[in-house]
Amino acid sequence: MVWVHSDAGTHQGARMPGKMRAVIKAEAAPGAEMAMVDIPQVAPGEVLVKVKATSICGTDVHIYEWDPWARSRIEPPMVFGHEFAGEVVEVGEGVTTPEPGDYVSAETHIVCGICCQCSTGQAHICEGVSIIGVDRAGSFAEYVSIPEENAWLNPPDMPPEVASIQEPFGNAVHTALSTDLAGKTVLVTGCGPIGLMAIGIARAAGAAAVYGTEVVPYRIELAAQMKVDLALNPRDLDVVSEIMTATDGLGVDVLLEMSGNPSAIHEGFAALRGGGYAALLGIPSRPVELDLANEVIFKGATVYGVSGRQVWKDWYQTRALLSSGAVDVGPIITHRLPLEDFEQGLKLMSRGQCGKVVLRP
Amino acid sequence: MVWVHSDAGTHQGARMPGKMRAVIKAEAAPGAEMAMVDIPQVAPGEVLVKVKATSICGTDVHIYEWDPWARSRIEPPMVFGHEFAGEVVEVGEGVTTPEPGDYVSAETHIVCGICCQCSTGQAHICEGVSIIGVDRAGSFAEYVSIPEENAWLNPPDMPPEVASIQEPFGNAVHTALSTDLAGKTVLVTGCGPIGLMAIGIARAAGAAAVYGTEVVPYRIELAAQMKVDLALNPRDLDVVSEIMTATDGLGVDVLLEMSGNPSAIHEGFAALRGGGYAALLGIPSRPVELDLANEVIFKGATVYGVSGRQVWKDWYQTRALLSSGAVDVGPIITHRLPLEDFEQGLKLMSRGQCGKVVLRP
Amino acid sequence: MVWVHSDAGTHQGARMPGKMRAVIKAEAAPGAEMAMVDIPQVAPGEVLVKVKATSICGTDVHIYEWDPWARSRIEPPMVFGHEFAGEVVEVGEGVTTPEPGDYVSAETHIVCGICCQCSTGQAHICEGVSIIGVDRAGSFAEYVSIPEENAWLNPPDMPPEVASIQEPFGNAVHTALSTDLAGKTVLVTGCGPIGLMAIGIARAAGAAAVYGTEVVPYRIELAAQMKVDLALNPRDLDVVSEIMTATDGLGVDVLLEMSGNPSAIHEGFAALRGGGYAALLGIPSRPVELDLANEVIFKGATVYGVSGRQVWKDWYQTRALLSSGAVDVGPIITHRLPLEDFEQGLKLMSRGQCGKVVLRP
Amino acid sequence: MVWVHSDAGTHQGARMPGKMRAVIKAEAAPGAEMAMVDIPQVAPGEVLVKVKATSICGTDVHIYEWDPWARSRIEPPMVFGHEFAGEVVEVGEGVTTPEPGDYVSAETHIVCGICCQCSTGQAHICEGVSIIGVDRAGSFAEYVSIPEENAWLNPPDMPPEVASIQEPFGNAVHTALSTDLAGKTVLVTGCGPIGLMAIGIARAAGAAAVYGTEVVPYRIELAAQMKVDLALNPRDLDVVSEIMTATDGLGVDVLLEMSGNPSAIHEGFAALRGGGYAALLGIPSRPVELDLANEVIFKGATVYGVSGRQVWKDWYQTRALLSSGAVDVGPIITHRLPLEDFEQGLKLMSRGQCGKVVLRP
Repeated sequence: MVWVHSDAGTHQGARMPGKMRAVIKAEAAPGAEMAMVDIPQVAPGEVLVKVKATSICGTDVHIYEWDPWARSRIEPPMVFGHEFAGEVVEVGEGVTTPEPGDYVSAETHIVCGICCQCSTGQAHICEGVSIIGVDRAGSFAEYVSIPEENAWLNPPDMPPEVASIQEPFGNAVHTALSTDLAGKTVLVTGCGPIGLMAIGIARAAGAAAVYGTEVVPYRIELAAQMKVDLALNPRDLDVVSEIMTATDGLGVDVLLEMSGNPSAIHEGFAALRGGGYAALLGIPSRPVELDLANEVIFKGATVYGVSGRQVWKDWYQTRALLSSGAVDVGPIITHRLPLEDFEQGLKLMSRGQCGKVVLRP
Repeated sequence: MVWVHSDAGTHQGARMPGKMRAVIKAEAAPGAEMAMVDIPQVAPGEVLVKVKATSICGTDVHIYEWDPWARSRIEPPMVFGHEFAGEVVEVGEGVTTPEPGDYVSAETHIVCGICCQCSTGQAHICEGVSIIGVDRAGSFAEYVSIPEENAWLNPPDMPPEVASIQEPFGNAVHTALSTDLAGKTVLVTGCGPIGLMAIGIARAAGAAAVYGTEVVPYRIELAAQMKVDLALNPRDLDVVSEIMTATDGLGVDVLLEMSGNPSAIHEGFAALRGGGYAALLGIPSRPVELDLANEVIFKGATVYGVSGRQVWKDWYQTRALLSSGAVDVGPIITHRLPLEDFEQGLKLMSRGQCGKVVLRP
Repeated sequence: MVWVHSDAGTHQGARMPGKMRAVIKAEAAPGAEMAMVDIPQVAPGEVLVKVKATSICGTDVHIYEWDPWARSRIEPPMVFGHEFAGEVVEVGEGVTTPEPGDYVSAETHIVCGICCQCSTGQAHICEGVSIIGVDRAGSFAEYVSIPEENAWLNPPDMPPEVASIQEPFGNAVHTALSTDLAGKTVLVTGCGPIGLMAIGIARAAGAAAVYGTEVVPYRIELAAQMKVDLALNPRDLDVVSEIMTATDGLGVDVLLEMSGNPSAIHEGFAALRGGGYAALLGIPSRPVELDLANEVIFKGATVYGVSGRQVWKDWYQTRALLSSGAVDVGPIITHRLPLEDFEQGLKLMSRGQCGKVVLRP
Repeated sequence: MVWVHSDAGTHQGARMPGKMRAVIKAEAAPGAEMAMVDIPQVAPGEVLVKVKATSICGTDVHIYEWDPWARSRIEPPMVFGHEFAGEVVEVGEGVTTPEPGDYVSAETHIVCGICCQCSTGQAHICEGVSIIGVDRAGSFAEYVSIPEENAWLNPPDMPPEVASIQEPFGNAVHTALSTDLAGKTVLVTGCGPIGLMAIGIARAAGAAAVYGTEVVPYRIELAAQMKVDLALNPRDLDVVSEIMTATDGLGVDVLLEMSGNPSAIHEGFAALRGGGYAALLGIPSRPVELDLANEVIFKGATVYGVSGRQVWKDWYQTRALLSSGAVDVGPIITHRLPLEDFEQGLKLMSRGQCGKVVLRP
């Protein structure tokens, strides 16, 4: 794949001044604002990255809108944002691998490294995780400091906007490639940015057919651009019966649940064939009444809860799928805005009138 | 393992008379009765088995008590019962493998053989399944006729009461051995007969520790006999906190859910460690409000719905674990009754005052 | 995918005459000949298929050339050939599923159904297998009779030449999809017909890169048409060093060995990265001196021996990959000949100057 | 399990003097000698361990006998030995986890942490590995210094001799538990210390039957003590035919190859059933002529090369199996010697007249 443009790798000769522009959650209330804040100190073992592109995640919308989760977790004032790509401009004491000039993205989960999960290959569910842009200063800024262990080297020709969205793409990889898709029928419930990525990944992984459900027409159109076989709006028709028809009454082999919406979850399980596999990434905001007998047990279904990215397995696959051109995320990146227009981006996300929104500091 | 006694293999020289004793669901109402009924005709491809032992399943209790499920499925008058062992006394036209004199048990699910599931190694969730003792005449009788494909040859020295309970033991094998248990901590929620078997299997498979929860004291005592490490009664103490203490705050690696009870399901997921594995066999009688975010997704859990037995993989493992003596089901078989005392057995099961009850026709 | 042409489904009203044209191994010596032979009797449980297309396998070349294996296995006179597609024109007594007019291909391994392998989902390595066109009359003929269990229903719009090569394509599916390929680097050693199919499958399954080795220039050209990233001729260059360069010194994630050639096997293992996966389908004609320590053990490699097709899992995936257009076998089918020109086809295969050769009776 | 004795946890108040007793490879020739050498400097990130027990590995015998591998790898003068348990007595700069007084064993492979293998959960085949007692000073000494990442905390009541042999036990766990053993038949070829451990693990993991082959009568006797079902000496009988008889002509489900001996490897594959699984840990000293067609491919076998231990998964399982008493290594530890008697121990190992030999500094 030839990237259409790239400004990565243009080293910044000058040292940064002491202050930088950043989007901050200034106080414990809805909203956010641009501010001049101190450039992060580079602690031992950390690297300072000059941000080239930083994309908006649903989590950022929760922080902006100050929902119950945000209220319980975020401590203002704080720079938020966590998906990004940029250039290493300074390395802290004891750093061994990344060097100034390296073009990196970041795994945003900072793990303890010693819990049972971390020490047996399941660091993505580390019990002591802290998250960039949630528990410490994030990337909606000119600079962000991260532990060297969290830096991921990008191919020089990968555009920053693509490199930035590798983090959520890694979630989609974790979800979609947690099972075998070649020759299988796949249903993606919820065509937000990660659902759209999952459609592209399922397509690239040889799925026999990929179906999607989504209520926002804008995103149904994006699903079509990602070459979904059928994009179904549950407000317009009975998606389960449509999928049953499309699969000769069998149901789909694989469900990738990306919405967290109870109706979509039930539709997904209803459309899943006996012996099928379901990966759940969407987070329901409250408990869901599940008919375990019929939706899971008699069906002989396997259900996998997806959290974060398997480090670095999912990143290797992410890089490979993007660099080889197997998945073209072009249609997914719908908006490119200067950092100053962050509110416009957050509002687009809130209304679902976008794919991925990338900010440029 | 040396079986203490066995009467298998004593060929019946005489042909059976035209009538036999059987327990029948006579009409669409609670209860059941002994009756003289016709010995089943041996259809082409079927074999007639003289029943040596037939054990009581929870399903039989549902049929006896005439619960909503039974009302929707059972068509009286009908012989019920489906767990059994006995001797082949007659083979129908075209039968190739079992021979008169063979000592057999039966896979009770009669599958279509041609649906997608049947044709890809998932016959246990065949879309067109019919069940012995549910959809056709069963084994609470002197004779039962079964398709030759459903007959399973027993070792001659396996006692009929053990051979009979291989069917539910196969469910326990399917559940417990659907993941790797060696060196793992395991929680079994619900210590009915299949839960007790699962404790024995987990023990035999090298589990580091096996914990059980159960509300009926009689069954807690049986769990202890099966060498559970801790048998916890949720009515007496906080089982989740007990298990957290026992696992150094980590939680168990594996949950085997055998109760179908919502409280037990929640306790099970709460006690499951991040990255853990849960197999669900117990059937909740109604939908369960599940906190998918915390119970499954953030936990990175894998959940497998268990239905029936993987034919014949689970039967091979069942036979091996029982014949090698790796699992001793002695403590589980608590009652041996003549067929005439079926009501006593059904009532013991209904009240949980037993392990497995075996009837002798 | 829209198939360019198809004559499947055009029912033959008239019953076939008593004789048919067929290619037979007439005697225990090199060669084969066209002959008029009896149309097969349709035994109980079998179906008679009018052959629309029948393709040539390497096994057919062995039979033609009368190599040591053929001498030990084949009993002339016999119709050989086993890859085919056609229309059911007659069904034997007791047949339940295929009907006259059905458009079918065949799984060519007739299995016993009762051995340990058959009864635990590994029928592809049945201990009592017999093979169409090897152990009984084959498909290089106007008609072939097969057990109903071996018939596989084709989509009506799949061209007979494509439907015929599903059998070897199923081998390629078994090999390539025995591991996860999305985002992985893959080396296919040996670009004969099945190797070429594996290239297409790996591509469709999202491989990051697919490399191939082959000594016959004609087939290197076909590999390029199947969109291999690098097609390397070991006679011209050091393939291991080329692959190491292409993979940044790491080696490939996956080896698909399709040649049976000792040099290719060693090159394949040398190019496999530590922790890699190798599937071996090519059959070496004699023992191979393997450096187990360095080629397998220290490498932590997993090696899977591939035999036949997993029934019917591999067939489902085969049909899905071909019907969805995920793999285009157009470049692989290089020759279409009337049945009479079978010798030309066998000689092309023998010299490697073809992809797949399809005969039309 | 109650350990019969333990002196772990008795803190050493006094700081060690500047010299210590150690077994060293003094020069590039066969042999070894006791010497007074400097106590290791504790580098940053390392911990100094006072050795309580250190056991002899086959690798130590290679170093002692100065075989070709040793000549190519070892740089005298050097303290060798790598299996051990002891107490942390000093921690280097920047160490965060182990504390003085901690009772530890060690993963002996020091990995790079950044190669593809290390970063995707396969650190056991790290491309940049260095090994304690091979590439740097080892544990046949009063003290050994190791990176903190390599320290593994032992339960206080685990005897040092058991804690020491966890390292090879971890190899046995890696090998034996790389597949599912419950209800399976298992063949262990080679009953040296790790083979004996594998017998115990297979037993504990619910194997239906465990067979062993071995040529040294002393070790055949130990295999019997580990409760192997059959211990077969290939010098006395046809082991393949014995195993075929024992498995009703089927062959074993699982082969655990522990000898590296070509005859044993061929016997193992000959005794493996179609569709079976083989894990290879024994290192052949030269290439082995393998009949890939019949030993692997037509058999549909899966072969896994085992190197090192999966960190820390295998250690968790090791600790669980030993602490729970599921495996009793009592019969395996046949000799306990003072460090001074190291040559006696090495010679016992060389002749196979021992299980595990543990030295006490």
